[in-house]
Amino acid sequence: MRVISYGKVEAKEVEGSSKLRLRWLNTDGSRNFAVRHIEIEPDGYSPYHRHSWEHEIFVLEGNGVAVGAKKEASISVGDLVSISANEVHQIKNNGEKTLKLLCMIPK
Amino acid sequence: MRVISYGKVEAKEVEGSSKLRLRWLNTDGSRNFAVRHIEIEPDGYSPYHRHSWEHEIFVLEGNGVAVGAKKEASISVGDLVSISANEVHQIKNNGEKTLKLLCMIPK
Repeated sequence: MRVISYGKVEAKEVEGSSKLRLRWLNTDGSRNFAVRHIEIEPDGYSPYHRHSWEHEIFVLEGNGVAVGAKKEASISVGDLVSISANEVHQIKNNGEKTLKLLCMIPK
Repeated sequence: MRVISYGKVEAKEVEGSSKLRLRWLNTDGSRNFAVRHIEIEPDGYSPYHRHSWEHEIFVLEGNGVAVGAKKEASISVGDLVSISANEVHQIKNNGEKTLKLLCMIPK
């Protein structure tokens, strides 16, 4: 059993994003999936992109918008956003405080 | 892209637990792992058990204790608890408000 606080993990920037910090929480943990902590400041955003792996994104704090190819959806605390493999997606912070997310991807 | 609020998912009880509600958030989502939302009321606990699948547990709200075979660790908001396959574990709420967790397991 290992316990790690997200604040103790080094934050990294992500290409194509703005005002976003990403932390890989369990690099030595799960064999099956990675858990990443993401903070997006107001007016910031994740890359608008697609890739071969799926996402599951849970909103921890704040408000934002999940952008897909055909629709947008408002997201707030307690929402899970499921993004399938190869689906275009982007998360924007249109709120007034930091948007905090937990983002899981398969390894 | 699908967005689902945890409050709209039916809560279920878990055998061997006390004062615990569990919601499966992405039953039709990820092919690789399940995301479950768990609430444990003060003095409640998850089963003390082991199983063949790993856990990654992120603390959303509240305080508690993660119990392993050889040690206990205090946990609070922003902590990730990584539990390996076949490792004995239990989560207890020793705080004064609801302990909210996000628990990921492989499918």
